[in-house]
Amino acid sequence: MQKGKQAEIRFNPNVSVDCVIFGFDGERLKVLLIDRGQEINGKDSEEKIYVLPGNLIREDENLNDAAERVLDELTGLSDIFLEQFGSFGAPDRLTKEHDLAWLKSIRAEPEARVITVAYYSLIRADQYEIHASGFAKEAFWYDIDDMPKLGFDHQDIIEQALTQLKFKSKYQPLGFELLPEKFTLGQLQKLYEAILKTELDKRNFRRKILKMSFLVPLKEKQQGVPHKPARYYTFDHDMYHRYKSNDFYFTL
Amino acid sequence: MQKGKQAEIRFNPNVSVDCVIFGFDGERLKVLLIDRGQEINGKDSEEKIYVLPGNLIREDENLNDAAERVLDELTGLSDIFLEQFGSFGAPDRLTKEHDLAWLKSIRAEPEARVITVAYYSLIRADQYEIHASGFAKEAFWYDIDDMPKLGFDHQDIIEQALTQLKFKSKYQPLGFELLPEKFTLGQLQKLYEAILKTELDKRNFRRKILKMSFLVPLKEKQQGVPHKPARYYTFDHDMYHRYKSNDFYFTL
Repeated sequence: MQKGKQAEIRFNPNVSVDCVIFGFDGERLKVLLIDRGQEINGKDSEEKIYVLPGNLIREDENLNDAAERVLDELTGLSDIFLEQFGSFGAPDRLTKEHDLAWLKSIRAEPEARVITVAYYSLIRADQYEIHASGFAKEAFWYDIDDMPKLGFDHQDIIEQALTQLKFKSKYQPLGFELLPEKFTLGQLQKLYEAILKTELDKRNFRRKILKMSFLVPLKEKQQGVPHKPARYYTFDHDMYHRYKSNDFYFTL
Repeated sequence: MQKGKQAEIRFNPNVSVDCVIFGFDGERLKVLLIDRGQEINGKDSEEKIYVLPGNLIREDENLNDAAERVLDELTGLSDIFLEQFGSFGAPDRLTKEHDLAWLKSIRAEPEARVITVAYYSLIRADQYEIHASGFAKEAFWYDIDDMPKLGFDHQDIIEQALTQLKFKSKYQPLGFELLPEKFTLGQLQKLYEAILKTELDKRNFRRKILKMSFLVPLKEKQQGVPHKPARYYTFDHDMYHRYKSNDFYFTL
């Protein structure tokens, strides 16, 4: 891809972007990875190596545009909010043998040092269509507790993104666009548990979350469930977004 | 400097670090700037252009080490904690005429696109010795409300660092290493006012800050002041650092 296009589009050899896309499926937190199509001696390797969607920036685009473009080119995901959370630049981050072999198959300057600017997002995993393209052979949602072998320093990048996500859950309300229009407090609790990677006490969670005025109880309850039907709640959109843009602190 | 050294030390042409060092002098918030020594047609320009201490990274060093080295080389400041807060990469960030003229006088590849990784810190302005060296002709503390003309996109970088600093003042206690060992609540209020760029109501400030268990009242009061002497306080170091590393939220 990139070698072929070098004639028309100039890439910066030293700067890339990587995207950590977290996906919540109603139960678990996942992260979007691609199979980068590792070749060994001109043949597809049996060992797959997974990486975050990422690539070099073009000489003429800014960092945010690069992140959006690269994510779209490799996974088909577009129109999602990407937030920069850190840059990674250890001199040896690309020098492992299998990583270098892959870079040689795809880059004009495979041995150039690359500093990557990392972005993250949290979306509803089952509401976006993913289709691998570019050098990505496949694109998958992986459970963050059951990750495959990752290339480069992508494990570190994901861990730092997760730290940022946990931190953010303390001062921004969570759930809008991740839960259905009406949801139970049990569903909201699952979201917090997936992000904080911990089980929460049900009574404590309810007591604290119900102080948040962006939560509106509905008259409607679950139907046809084998347990005591739970009440549905919805978000007051105005209030939710006011909390999101203002000072707020929430700890469970 | 850099041109001459290229034979021994290789710099990455596309990646730099910049340091936003905030300094509190007991009254006001300042930022450390250097006069980069602008020449026009081989003569010192009469118009001085100030910039953040920053420069290209070496090919063999990681980003944090580069930030520490560059800050030390240009201002003599060392052993201060630098925190990465964002990367800046607009394609036109170095293309203004006077910026490009300066780059031509100093860099091997003056027209290369440079993405900068930005760091910040907050220190006691009057307790560190500053001495300009390298391409820095002079190094000064500037009041953030009275800034000179800045090169590159450094105004934007400082504004973003300031946003980060304000945000951080909400979840990390402030004052340790910035105030004397014993201080009055008036001095602590001045620190918050300098960072938040707002006047705070004295009674409200005291009511809220005194809930923080890291503040310890002393028996001692001010002496020889023309007003009612104020009580001194000190930080309980253990408690302060526990707040600093744990969840905490403070809004004024």
